[in-house]
Amino acid sequence: MLIGLTHRIERQFAELQSRHGRKKSPFCLCEGVRCCGELLNSPAASSVTLAVISEKLRCGFEFPESCDVVQVSDDKLQKLSGTVTSQGILLLLRRPSVRPEDFPAPADPFIIAVDQLGDPGNFGTILRTARAAGLREFWFTAGSADAYAPKVIRSSLAAQFSMQLREFADLDELRQFAERCNYKNFFLTDPHCGESCFECEALFDRSVVVIGSEAHGIESSAAGSRVTIPMPGNFESLNAAQAATIVLFEHVRRLTAGGKK
Amino acid sequence: MLIGLTHRIERQFAELQSRHGRKKSPFCLCEGVRCCGELLNSPAASSVTLAVISEKLRCGFEFPESCDVVQVSDDKLQKLSGTVTSQGILLLLRRPSVRPEDFPAPADPFIIAVDQLGDPGNFGTILRTARAAGLREFWFTAGSADAYAPKVIRSSLAAQFSMQLREFADLDELRQFAERCNYKNFFLTDPHCGESCFECEALFDRSVVVIGSEAHGIESSAAGSRVTIPMPGNFESLNAAQAATIVLFEHVRRLTAGGKK
Repeated sequence: MLIGLTHRIERQFAELQSRHGRKKSPFCLCEGVRCCGELLNSPAASSVTLAVISEKLRCGFEFPESCDVVQVSDDKLQKLSGTVTSQGILLLLRRPSVRPEDFPAPADPFIIAVDQLGDPGNFGTILRTARAAGLREFWFTAGSADAYAPKVIRSSLAAQFSMQLREFADLDELRQFAERCNYKNFFLTDPHCGESCFECEALFDRSVVVIGSEAHGIESSAAGSRVTIPMPGNFESLNAAQAATIVLFEHVRRLTAGGKK
Repeated sequence: MLIGLTHRIERQFAELQSRHGRKKSPFCLCEGVRCCGELLNSPAASSVTLAVISEKLRCGFEFPESCDVVQVSDDKLQKLSGTVTSQGILLLLRRPSVRPEDFPAPADPFIIAVDQLGDPGNFGTILRTARAAGLREFWFTAGSADAYAPKVIRSSLAAQFSMQLREFADLDELRQFAERCNYKNFFLTDPHCGESCFECEALFDRSVVVIGSEAHGIESSAAGSRVTIPMPGNFESLNAAQAATIVLFEHVRRLTAGGKK
C-alpha cells in the first residue's frame, strides 16, 4: 500500500543507523537495487514491512502484500539510509533469528563457521562466498560482526536472507550443536600448523571448518584438528575472507572435478 | 638523522592525502606498524626518505641511513596521516615505478593480472594474496586503483614493495608484453562461460590469468581463452578478490599437492 513518510518511520531509520539502536530494534535494513533484489527473491521477502523507494527508481520490484511503500526524493532517501550515495531503495524487515534451534536441522554436506570475526566487510564477503559455493548454513560465535548490520548486508549482497545463520556463545557450544546434528569432524584453520587443506581427505566429510579472525586467530586451547593453507610466499597470513574462500572452493573443486583429489 | 617537523614536511603529507596531490607527487606514504615493518624488510626500504613516528611508539624499527626521522605526538601523527586512529608510524618514500620495462624480465611461473580493477580494497587484497601465494609479479591495466594509494597499501599489507608491479594501457598491450616474455597462454576469467579453472591443465603453464573488475567484467571483445570458477550456489558472481584468490590458490594446490590434479 502506498503511504506517506511519517515521523515514526524516520525515527525508526535513524535508530537503525547506530549500533546501539540496532541492538534494541527487532528490524533491520537492506539497501540498494542489487541487495534488495536478492532479498525480495529470498524466503525473507515475506518479512519485509516497508519499502522506501526513490522517485527516480525505474526497476520494477514486486513487493509482498504485507509491505507498505513510501516514495521519497533521492535526497531524503540518502538521509534515511545514512550512506553517501543513494542506492534507490531501502527495505525494512523483521530481523531473522540467529538462534541455533530456530531452524530445521542443517542439510549442508559440511559447515563453514567463523570464530569472533568482527570485521563486517570480511564477515559479509564470507557469507556471499559461502552462498556462491552452494552452502545454506553459516555458523558464527558471539563477538562476530552483527550479521544484519547494513555494511554486512552490502558486503554479502544480502546472501544471509537465503541462508540459515546460527550464532553460538563460543566454539564449545558450536561444537556440541554440530555433534548433535551429526557433524562429527571438527577442523580449525591455523596459519602455522596442521594438515594441508588440499590434502586433508576428511575436510568436508560431515565436518565443521572454523575460520578464525585475523586479529585473534582461534584460541590455542580450542579442541579440534588443525588444518592449514600452504603459503609458498611466506608472507603475512591470509585475510580471513581469503582463507574462507580457499576452503569453500576447495570443496567446490572436489565436487565438480569428478572426485579427483 | 633526527630532525624537527617542518612546514615543508606537513605540506608534503597534506598533498598526499588527495588523489590529485598523489598524481603530481613522486612520493607515496606507508602507515602503521605492520605495513611499515614489511616495507622496511623489502627492497624498497632504501627509497624511504622520511619516517614520522609517534613519541609513544615502542617498536624498534631500523631505518636506512638515507632516512630522516621526526618524532611527533600521537595527535600530530594522526593529522599527518589522515586516518582516524594513529598507527604509530608513517614512512615517506619514492614511489616505485610501474612501467613495464623498468624491471628485469618476470620470473614467475604464471602471471596474475587485473583489468580496470578500481576498488582499492580489492586491489590491495589481491596483491597481498598473490604475494602469499608466492608470486613476485602483479600486472594491471590503466583504470585500476592507484597501486600506491594509502588504502591499497593498507589492504595489501605493503606487499607491493616486495613485488614488481607493471601497468599497461590496456589488455592488448599487456598481452603483447606477455608474449615477448614468453608467457604464451592468455586466460580471461569469466563468471558465465569457459573451462573450469579446476580442470584447465594449461592454466598455470607460462600463462597470464586476467581477473576482471566486478563492475565491468572483461570486455567481451578481448582475445583469450575463457576460464570460469564453478559456482554451485548459482548466486551473484564472486567478488574480484575472491575470484583471484581461488585462482591463486589453485596454483598453490597443484604445486603442493604433489602434482595431483
